[in-house]
Amino acid sequence: MKKKIAIVGLGLIGGSFARAFKKYTDYTVIGFNRTQSTAEKALADGAIDAIGTPEDLKEVDIVLLSMYPKVSCDFVEKHMEAFKPGCIITDDCGIKSYLVERLTPLCQAHGLYFVGGHPMAGREVSGYKASDADLYRGASMLLVPTEASTPEIVKQVKAMFSQIGFGQLVITTPEHHDRMIAYTSQLCHVVSSAYIKSPSELEHKGYSGGSYRDLTRVAYLNETMWTELFIENKQALVPEIDEIIHHLTEYRDAIAAEDEQTLFRLLKEGRQRKEQFG
Amino acid sequence: MKKKIAIVGLGLIGGSFARAFKKYTDYTVIGFNRTQSTAEKALADGAIDAIGTPEDLKEVDIVLLSMYPKVSCDFVEKHMEAFKPGCIITDDCGIKSYLVERLTPLCQAHGLYFVGGHPMAGREVSGYKASDADLYRGASMLLVPTEASTPEIVKQVKAMFSQIGFGQLVITTPEHHDRMIAYTSQLCHVVSSAYIKSPSELEHKGYSGGSYRDLTRVAYLNETMWTELFIENKQALVPEIDEIIHHLTEYRDAIAAEDEQTLFRLLKEGRQRKEQFG
Repeated sequence: MKKKIAIVGLGLIGGSFARAFKKYTDYTVIGFNRTQSTAEKALADGAIDAIGTPEDLKEVDIVLLSMYPKVSCDFVEKHMEAFKPGCIITDDCGIKSYLVERLTPLCQAHGLYFVGGHPMAGREVSGYKASDADLYRGASMLLVPTEASTPEIVKQVKAMFSQIGFGQLVITTPEHHDRMIAYTSQLCHVVSSAYIKSPSELEHKGYSGGSYRDLTRVAYLNETMWTELFIENKQALVPEIDEIIHHLTEYRDAIAAEDEQTLFRLLKEGRQRKEQFG
Repeated sequence: MKKKIAIVGLGLIGGSFARAFKKYTDYTVIGFNRTQSTAEKALADGAIDAIGTPEDLKEVDIVLLSMYPKVSCDFVEKHMEAFKPGCIITDDCGIKSYLVERLTPLCQAHGLYFVGGHPMAGREVSGYKASDADLYRGASMLLVPTEASTPEIVKQVKAMFSQIGFGQLVITTPEHHDRMIAYTSQLCHVVSSAYIKSPSELEHKGYSGGSYRDLTRVAYLNETMWTELFIENKQALVPEIDEIIHHLTEYRDAIAAEDEQTLFRLLKEGRQRKEQFG
């Protein structure tokens, strides 16, 4: 019998997952979305096979939560009695400690499995309309096994995500995930947003090229989502912001003092790091 | 008779100018380069018509200086007696006040014209081998008239750069240029270089995607060039670094205090700025 997957939340990320499961697997894809018209659009597009109701959950093998962290946890709590025993729950939220702490005991108590997930892919535009079956082709997928999972379940989840095109499956812990994401994703958004607060931003047109474009691209962000993510990950993110402020101050002081030797060393170290790890 | 242009310095930027003049105009292109083998390569490629000697300068109508600021000024000083009277000197250096202060009186005293220039185009790779006749297609070219130029000369220089594909010619002052470039280009390089100094950089592989890639791209830089440019523009650059440190601290404090309202406002203001000016 064909496996059933429920995608809960059909935004850019969830919508792309739905499309990818339809394109690359024979899973039956059930879509859940707060705004009904979006779910209807996804159904009409063939991005999902059916619009889900809570009753459908008892026949679903895998639930992929694709909403903000709090709402994702609330959804599981609310429907805890409705899931099929042995159902695998996974998600695509940008932080993991928070979800693992809330969902692991719940899933353990109800005979469900939980493996956290986070795809390293996205776009600066959001919403179902921007979704794409090939958003995940070649990208990295981070997986966080929990006490509510087994090696066999993790293996199944890995195989499932490989099937829809991820190029790399990385197994990590919630703490390590959140520490890395603070650096590789959250700090980018903080820096980009802070960058364009300069008064010079108001007159940059005609004076800017590729480096400005890259540095400020992700300032165009969803403030509701990132406010939640940043605060839920403050233990990892605040030290990263302190770190870059500390380094910016080193460059600043070398320039202000016209200390060519120090500035040269700082820039060379940066270039070498980029060469070695970039 | 065909006009003659001398490109002094055949790196990425100068090499691309040479190729563009060959491709889009009927100028005779004379190349000067410290490393002889590069000049010979450019000649063999047809990127230049001849390798220049100081004696050739007396027949050159336009000199485009494409070296670091100090060396560019030194070249003009050294060959001041060799230029053709009425010759137009321009450049592509990333700062303008320094050049205008050194070259304007020299050019005025010797009957030469000087219009500063700065193309808003580049690549993270450098050197002649990366040069491209179409590097400037559609890009913005900043022009800085000086007391050693006239409206008629500026018009000629504009027409010349339009001819090789620039999409926009922007006239500005040395001070305004340097203030804008501190923000749109120099600060990008400082921030990118400081970003990857985090200890987390050492383990980012597999945990990073497009936003990390964009934020850190220009950390791969030429430390010799940027050390000179940053220090020569410290009056504009230091305040920009102070500005971003100030804003980063606002985000940091809001996250540390779990102040959702302030954080939401900071992120929303950033997103709106990006929408309005980005």
